[in-house]
Amino acid sequence: MEELKISEVYRAQQVLKDVARHPRIIGPTNLDPDAQIYLKPENLQYTGSFKLRGAYYKISQLTDEEKARGVIACSAGNHAQGVALGAARNGIKALICLPSGAPLSKIEATKALGAEVCLVDGVYDDAYNKAIELKESEGYTFVHPFDDPLVIAGQGTIGLEILEEMPDVEAVVVPVGGGGLIAGVAFAIKTLRPDIKVYGVQAAGAPSMAESIEKHERIRLDNVSTIADGIAVKQPGTLTYEACQRYVDEVVTVTEDEIAAAILALIEKQKLVAEGAGAVSVAAVMFNKLPIKGKKVVCIVSGGNIDVSILNRVITRGLTKSGRICNIHLDLNDKPGQLSAVCDIIGKHGGNILNITHGRTNTRGINSCELHVELETRNNEHIKEIHDALAEAGYQMM
Amino acid sequence: MEELKISEVYRAQQVLKDVARHPRIIGPTNLDPDAQIYLKPENLQYTGSFKLRGAYYKISQLTDEEKARGVIACSAGNHAQGVALGAARNGIKALICLPSGAPLSKIEATKALGAEVCLVDGVYDDAYNKAIELKESEGYTFVHPFDDPLVIAGQGTIGLEILEEMPDVEAVVVPVGGGGLIAGVAFAIKTLRPDIKVYGVQAAGAPSMAESIEKHERIRLDNVSTIADGIAVKQPGTLTYEACQRYVDEVVTVTEDEIAAAILALIEKQKLVAEGAGAVSVAAVMFNKLPIKGKKVVCIVSGGNIDVSILNRVITRGLTKSGRICNIHLDLNDKPGQLSAVCDIIGKHGGNILNITHGRTNTRGINSCELHVELETRNNEHIKEIHDALAEAGYQMM
Repeated sequence: MEELKISEVYRAQQVLKDVARHPRIIGPTNLDPDAQIYLKPENLQYTGSFKLRGAYYKISQLTDEEKARGVIACSAGNHAQGVALGAARNGIKALICLPSGAPLSKIEATKALGAEVCLVDGVYDDAYNKAIELKESEGYTFVHPFDDPLVIAGQGTIGLEILEEMPDVEAVVVPVGGGGLIAGVAFAIKTLRPDIKVYGVQAAGAPSMAESIEKHERIRLDNVSTIADGIAVKQPGTLTYEACQRYVDEVVTVTEDEIAAAILALIEKQKLVAEGAGAVSVAAVMFNKLPIKGKKVVCIVSGGNIDVSILNRVITRGLTKSGRICNIHLDLNDKPGQLSAVCDIIGKHGGNILNITHGRTNTRGINSCELHVELETRNNEHIKEIHDALAEAGYQMM
Repeated sequence: MEELKISEVYRAQQVLKDVARHPRIIGPTNLDPDAQIYLKPENLQYTGSFKLRGAYYKISQLTDEEKARGVIACSAGNHAQGVALGAARNGIKALICLPSGAPLSKIEATKALGAEVCLVDGVYDDAYNKAIELKESEGYTFVHPFDDPLVIAGQGTIGLEILEEMPDVEAVVVPVGGGGLIAGVAFAIKTLRPDIKVYGVQAAGAPSMAESIEKHERIRLDNVSTIADGIAVKQPGTLTYEACQRYVDEVVTVTEDEIAAAILALIEKQKLVAEGAGAVSVAAVMFNKLPIKGKKVVCIVSGGNIDVSILNRVITRGLTKSGRICNIHLDLNDKPGQLSAVCDIIGKHGGNILNITHGRTNTRGINSCELHVELETRNNEHIKEIHDALAEAGYQMM
């Protein structure tokens, strides 16, 4: 294993001094009533994620000859934008290989940062193979998204910043995909302050590092599936796996619903937009996955690049679960005045109708029809109030 | 006019040192291609808005006797939460009068911060009258939301922080409702650095300060209506109006659609959740309302307390306008296989169906039926591609 060195992390900190944003740690928050939870908001970083740090530092350390030839990377997400900006700021060429089905918004964001984009037919693995092929044939330097000591050192600067800004922190919670971020942060923190706990969090739908640690070998998952696409990685790196084994206290997982709840809590309570991968650290503390009771804890919110249509779904689901959107299905007698009477009851009880569908479906008989109403409500008690009022007036809920 | 004093603003800064959060200025951003736009993110402040500053400072300066009797305020929003937290941190009692129709979430948030809540039947003016009545009968100190020199001094600390953190700033853009924030910020900045421009922004649906400045008298609007509820104020204060006349370079207005676009841009590009009132400053620079070309500008994002269901609507509207949600209405011949054929075309062109309604409406004749499809698309070109494919297959768009 190539040795990680703390001097490298300090050197990265110097290099990144005027390149990365350094938003202050936010808190204490009210995200967990039993602990003091602070947030390190890397979603506010340039490019919307921490990835800029490792990519920029790696690129800055290339020889002049390597810089002249340029860099190549394979990513549809945050790493692509980190490499693009890192290359542009270093004044060198970057080529990013993407699977052709990648979201247009990601392709455009990468181009807007000055990188060339090479669309490859197929999936991520095909784009990766193409990148390696071009690296060989054209002499580009390949910038790995996580399994590179310089990339890891760049991400480790987040650990140094946490120690400087909050020396009395007792635990740091870190999202884990390939493991570059947690390898850097855990290495820096445990080297300098072994008394501080470092915990990793993965999506339950992509638990490659968690399972590797548990089985004491670097395993590869056949399938990964999670809304936290930034950490949907099938296999940890060799360097990152070794660093996690050595420096990380525990790696836990969170469910999709827990991730969605954390995204919504960050929006409502902290006014921060986090992507799924960025919110898993907060999900772990909200849903009591970690032994942090009474402790001073920093959660790294690693990124904020969430597709707005996914954000829309997360919010809608959150509104439904908390009783602020509700769906009512009624079985009505098919005679004039029924719809008006139902709407009247809903309106009098303060429900605000969003959508309505009324039709004959003959579920009960020739004289019945079905009504579906979607409405805005205040909370679950309010829904019950409306349900009760409809039942009292003789309407039958389906 | 009670004189504003710069010493008061400095004193407020000392008092607020360990009370307010001091998130760093964010930027440069890409919100306006023709200027360097930075953000002062007061949405990340405790209670989700700058209001804590003025309320806390006002309360901290009360005599021991006044503190023993407690404070009263009238607000359904950010001011209520500012007063509640300010009072709790000073260890004194706060009573907040709210109109009984106030959103439950706001009532709960105010209670959660330790204040007592007095619900008053009627609208804001009724709650205000009740608060004044209780102030007289019970001896509470009334904390005005903006027209008080100590409240203005507290808000002015934001001006000092901008000057300290970014001494080369050339213009500051400030949301304006009653005018407390801009009075404090403009007074502090123009006193210390008269070379820096200070601009105010109001919602076009509530332009009380803009019209007052234009007409050289403090006018009162009969009606105000805007999604920026935090600045929906019918009349500026006397102190704040005089300060704006004297220290503010210009007050402009932005439309509802411009405010919604700014909220969406802050979410997508800056990963920040702003309420309508907090986003008007950004709306003004995005839509070229101000003479700031080539300048270094700080926009104050004054708050982030947006109701999630409103956020949902803003996002949906933004998705629709940018071509990422689209609605197609088709006039079909009523025969088997039509729906399947349409869905097939949409699916082949990468459209993702969200909702579908199919029914007979006899618009065209006995053999016609109507289909409404809501689908996720990539952008307006993608919508055109799907439209063209449907037209080519002989389907008639309504």
